[in-house]
Amino acid sequence: MEQTLNRSYVHGYDPVESGRLDDQARTLEELLHHDTRYPDGSRVLEAGCGTGAQTTILARRSPGALKTAVDIAADSIAEARQRLGLLGSEGVRFDRADCARLPYADSCFDHVFVCFMLEHLSRPGDVLLELRRVLKPGGSLTVIEGDHGSFYCYPQTPASEKVVRCLIDLQAAGGGDALIGRRLYPLLVRAHFEDLRVTPRVVYVDPSRPEWEQGFSRHTFIAMVAGVEQDAIGQGMIDAATWRQGIDDLAATIGRGTFHYTFFKATGRKSDP
Amino acid sequence: MEQTLNRSYVHGYDPVESGRLDDQARTLEELLHHDTRYPDGSRVLEAGCGTGAQTTILARRSPGALKTAVDIAADSIAEARQRLGLLGSEGVRFDRADCARLPYADSCFDHVFVCFMLEHLSRPGDVLLELRRVLKPGGSLTVIEGDHGSFYCYPQTPASEKVVRCLIDLQAAGGGDALIGRRLYPLLVRAHFEDLRVTPRVVYVDPSRPEWEQGFSRHTFIAMVAGVEQDAIGQGMIDAATWRQGIDDLAATIGRGTFHYTFFKATGRKSDP
Repeated sequence: MEQTLNRSYVHGYDPVESGRLDDQARTLEELLHHDTRYPDGSRVLEAGCGTGAQTTILARRSPGALKTAVDIAADSIAEARQRLGLLGSEGVRFDRADCARLPYADSCFDHVFVCFMLEHLSRPGDVLLELRRVLKPGGSLTVIEGDHGSFYCYPQTPASEKVVRCLIDLQAAGGGDALIGRRLYPLLVRAHFEDLRVTPRVVYVDPSRPEWEQGFSRHTFIAMVAGVEQDAIGQGMIDAATWRQGIDDLAATIGRGTFHYTFFKATGRKSDP
Repeated sequence: MEQTLNRSYVHGYDPVESGRLDDQARTLEELLHHDTRYPDGSRVLEAGCGTGAQTTILARRSPGALKTAVDIAADSIAEARQRLGLLGSEGVRFDRADCARLPYADSCFDHVFVCFMLEHLSRPGDVLLELRRVLKPGGSLTVIEGDHGSFYCYPQTPASEKVVRCLIDLQAAGGGDALIGRRLYPLLVRAHFEDLRVTPRVVYVDPSRPEWEQGFSRHTFIAMVAGVEQDAIGQGMIDAATWRQGIDDLAATIGRGTFHYTFFKATGRKSDP
């Protein structure tokens, strides 16, 4: 979901539009991040920072923490660095690195933070073990992921089910897992984290919540689905007419129906030696 | 979901078992009912009380309210009356009545309460209009319903998806709607209720929550699915081997996977004249 959460930042040209998108981003930020704040001076690793959408939130919420953000893609790192610079958040160190083989010594971070990364990995368990390695004993891991299989809506149609299914299947074809939210607990058990706590973060949208209809249904979820149109049609998963119908049907829930999605936030601890 | 919530009460022979089931019922009760309490002396109608599973909760949580419970089935009313009597809750009047044609004057109740009833109706909107008729202006309606389409689990298999689908299809074949939770907001709009507020009540289960694994996953949800085995196989929706596999796969999530279900609670008000 990284790419579409980014939209809220990328699309900030017009000051009015920018303010509205900021409000939307902040609504979701509150749901996902309100209970994460790292102490001043603590060493925090953000693994898989992408273009920095979550890094800006981390920087704003934990201004005194010593933050390191890594990503495997050099161009993402460059964009993230520029974004943080524009926001005047200078206190983040960026490193290009593979999260399965981090260039850091054992036990050198107090906390590790991961948001919308594991969904893209074919072997998330290996990365979790590596994150545990660089975490000091007693340190914490926080993971936030979505689960596209948690989506449903009213009215729901065969076409709207199908376009969402395409998104899930494309992620699977690319080696990822768009249904990873439901797997966080067993994944963290297998990676030997302790004191696990997983909480669902539920987005429920109906016409009494117009800011969520626009901010989440339209500009986050439907925009994300719409973004894979060419891939889905190109790979023969769906025909163009059904695709258009599915996107229209999703949009038709706004103003009269309901929209449902669940994120998951997991925390765990590396046991003391 | 009425039938399986009832299990917690029906299966209360052995005192140890009874205590455990009471704990389970209370966990779910807290999630669904914690924010419903009616003032002393207010006139409350429970529409579709069935065998009284929710009536006992209503009676316990609003002991001073003047409660009337109605159901269309005479034998359910008899069982509900007996259950309430055994619990020493005498302050409930029971009437046998069709909720689409209630034997009450306009505007004679302060509050109306509905739990796990609309899912069974082919025309829930008509019943909501009738409930509005007997509600006094300014009075409140509270509706609690599940949504079986909100269910997912990990690991999830084709067979486990199929047995849950059978439950949904059987309810549809009987004229009901097991996906009604997502529809509450538009239904209440169409029935002219105002000040609507719908909140999801999310059950998230993983091995760190063994009381939910037993109380919800095993003894509520899986038990409810298992209860329609004969109908599903008899109507040719599924073969016996796939059925068994599906139930086994659902049970296999316990102790290692995750289980997800969402109830919905809606409140609305009849506008002042």
